[in-house]
Amino acid sequence: MSNVVSTGPLPGSRKAYRGALRVPVREIELTNGQVVERYDTSGPYTETDFRPDLGNGLPKRDRTRTHPTQLLAARAGEVTTEMAYVAARENLPAELVRDEIAAGRAVIPANVNHPEAEPMIIGKRFLVKVNANIGTSAVTSSPAEEVEKMVWATRWGADTVMDLSTGPRIHETREWILRNSPVPIGTVPIYQALERVNGDPTALTWEIYRDVVVEQCEQGVDYMTVHAGVRMAYIPLTVGRKTGIVSRGGSILAAWCLAHHQENFLYTNFAELCEVLRTYDVTFSLGDGLRPGSVHDANDDAQLAELRTLGELTKVAKDHGVQTMIEGPGHVPMDKIAENVRLQQEWCDDAPFYTLGPLATDVAPGYDHITSAIGAAMIAWHGTAMLCYVTPKEHLGLPDRDDVKAGVIAYKIAAHAADVAKGHPGAQAHDDQLSDARFEFRWADQFALALDPETAQSFHDETLPAAPAKTA
Amino acid sequence: MSNVVSTGPLPGSRKAYRGALRVPVREIELTNGQVVERYDTSGPYTETDFRPDLGNGLPKRDRTRTHPTQLLAARAGEVTTEMAYVAARENLPAELVRDEIAAGRAVIPANVNHPEAEPMIIGKRFLVKVNANIGTSAVTSSPAEEVEKMVWATRWGADTVMDLSTGPRIHETREWILRNSPVPIGTVPIYQALERVNGDPTALTWEIYRDVVVEQCEQGVDYMTVHAGVRMAYIPLTVGRKTGIVSRGGSILAAWCLAHHQENFLYTNFAELCEVLRTYDVTFSLGDGLRPGSVHDANDDAQLAELRTLGELTKVAKDHGVQTMIEGPGHVPMDKIAENVRLQQEWCDDAPFYTLGPLATDVAPGYDHITSAIGAAMIAWHGTAMLCYVTPKEHLGLPDRDDVKAGVIAYKIAAHAADVAKGHPGAQAHDDQLSDARFEFRWADQFALALDPETAQSFHDETLPAAPAKTA
Repeated sequence: MSNVVSTGPLPGSRKAYRGALRVPVREIELTNGQVVERYDTSGPYTETDFRPDLGNGLPKRDRTRTHPTQLLAARAGEVTTEMAYVAARENLPAELVRDEIAAGRAVIPANVNHPEAEPMIIGKRFLVKVNANIGTSAVTSSPAEEVEKMVWATRWGADTVMDLSTGPRIHETREWILRNSPVPIGTVPIYQALERVNGDPTALTWEIYRDVVVEQCEQGVDYMTVHAGVRMAYIPLTVGRKTGIVSRGGSILAAWCLAHHQENFLYTNFAELCEVLRTYDVTFSLGDGLRPGSVHDANDDAQLAELRTLGELTKVAKDHGVQTMIEGPGHVPMDKIAENVRLQQEWCDDAPFYTLGPLATDVAPGYDHITSAIGAAMIAWHGTAMLCYVTPKEHLGLPDRDDVKAGVIAYKIAAHAADVAKGHPGAQAHDDQLSDARFEFRWADQFALALDPETAQSFHDETLPAAPAKTA
Repeated sequence: MSNVVSTGPLPGSRKAYRGALRVPVREIELTNGQVVERYDTSGPYTETDFRPDLGNGLPKRDRTRTHPTQLLAARAGEVTTEMAYVAARENLPAELVRDEIAAGRAVIPANVNHPEAEPMIIGKRFLVKVNANIGTSAVTSSPAEEVEKMVWATRWGADTVMDLSTGPRIHETREWILRNSPVPIGTVPIYQALERVNGDPTALTWEIYRDVVVEQCEQGVDYMTVHAGVRMAYIPLTVGRKTGIVSRGGSILAAWCLAHHQENFLYTNFAELCEVLRTYDVTFSLGDGLRPGSVHDANDDAQLAELRTLGELTKVAKDHGVQTMIEGPGHVPMDKIAENVRLQQEWCDDAPFYTLGPLATDVAPGYDHITSAIGAAMIAWHGTAMLCYVTPKEHLGLPDRDDVKAGVIAYKIAAHAADVAKGHPGAQAHDDQLSDARFEFRWADQFALALDPETAQSFHDETLPAAPAKTA
């Protein structure tokens, strides 16, 4: 089991690397001779002959730097290697990348201690990105299984992965994931801090939390969810809600505030936290601990009060030279989505928005990859830079391998639909290539160009398995 | 096989009938004592002890009338039994129903020869409706199997069913479906007309088509797709498209026009067709034979030229007292969806819009229930009255039972998300009930309130099967 991860190219594709920076692409050679390229997140695992060695991890990139963070480098007018890399990856000018980072409208989450990762950028001027959550719980799964979930998620297009592991093997699991991950890894440090105090939120202290953050920074975590906006004064605003506080981090910090009757220690120590993150160029993902857990609670006073505070903290983080993005909901009906983005952009100085869905309705547990893909596509069209996926098991249980894939594909659909609606350069070319293949009955090309070639072909073959049907 | 259809209530639900009109509802009794009601489309099949007799069909409702059509009755100020029924079903005033029908903004598709059906209304002031397509092809399935597909689709919430059968048993299949269907049935008569001329579109005539329409009206078909807007002059507008003409009806009529170099016989004989449909109170569903088959072709000259003609035909139909709705695309990127509805409403005098999806991107064959649920939710929010579902097999093969369910559920999500975003009276109450149950860990209630109780419970039980986990 321990070394078994998914390898080899997707059907109809081959891995290639472009230029001196060796930027990865997925090449698809069509039956009409055309060769098209896709943005590729899957790392060396999709090379034809890659043999993973999970114990030693992926090859390491050179990570020299002249400024502590990408933000500080960009402000100094420098195009770092990482900026050049993501520019080539996105087919956009390096100066645009630099300027967007300098303005705080985009981030490159790349801890200096995570040299295995391929640089990528999160910002509304770039392709909409997708995050997949994985992680062991107390009852299930081993570190190697979590590595395979990470590999599996990136195989289908996840741009970043969050390790939400809990339980005793949290450090070891994260180490396995980081050393083998071609994409940035995010975490929620409060989860590990809570393990340190045996699950009692009231026993948390700033020092315990800070130690966990330093440990994770040293390991190479690229971005961290920090619920510093859950201020004590906002907790009463959740009383009239349908679904109270649904964010785990938000609940932990609210419990701490109420027990001690003190302001959230992440808020009061935020400047020191900035210093830690700057040292490693770790990116803040300012968490929305008061996000709505139902459409009823969307855009309410609690959510918006916290969002204003996240805007205030964004300024502090940027003043410290720390890259910052902002997390968003959750559950939002369609008519409130545009407003949600507008307020986030206005109050948070255009920092990249990173939303969980949102679910456009609460009535379909078992199908929340769909209820949320609707909201995700719309919110990304309106300017969200990265979408955190939701799987069919949301609200019901732990996602397995099939659920991870279903979640990633649903979110690649949402992200791409947004890229097309935004008129992102080159986005609609994918649709046009597939539509050409469809109109010309080039079935093999339709499969190869599909987000999921395997499912497309298998559905086709169920009804019309004969080879002639694929070329007629 | 022949008499095996799905019966019995959904988990946690029971069928009930309200008032003198015996309007069907699905009752859900929650563990906290609350009893909630859901709009119910499933007919007597979800009664506790219903024993279907497919050979004799469902019980027949009384269908006396004082005016030829619901439109003419509404204009005369009359509230028909059907109007009263749908008003009770939607919890809205009967006068609103009458006024919306009188204005042509809503339709009740109810052929006088389909007394088995429960009246329902399609219009933007009412709940967004969902249609499911079924039908035999030349190679697969029997009439009884199609009846089961219809029962299955309505069990999960399909408001109408279109029978798109082709092949030799087309009349017999439709008869089985009509006699056993609790929902309105739609058809595309040109398919059967084409069978009459052995599949040669150039051999079609107005007389052959008209005979098919009369036959289907006599049988009880409630609404018919008529591609009368595919005018000869518009066909050259499709030349520069990525995907030409993808509507089967549109292709047939374009082939006829080109072969004869004559105007579409459905356009030239439209007034006579109105007379036929009025006789039975069959509703027009004016087909978009030139709908885009790719996001590239969305809102192009061909599509919009046809839409203008559909507006012209809407006026003719209404002048004849015939209820009319308008079909729409297909494939439309998110940024063009609002415009699509706006033009349809403006040009077609606010006739109900009935759209196929639309797919918001072309890149995910195998997942087109999702690519299109995104577009469907948005277009319904903007005013589409009924959504034609798309299954995961779209573009790839024929939907099976699981695909039908996946398509219906994805579209119930889209429709409900739109109802919530529109602020439709009572819509968000469903979300709130489920969110309350979620917040209070009333698992059994969450399952019962879910669009698909079976899947919600099975996903939960995979991870946490023990009974205490459902009540803790």
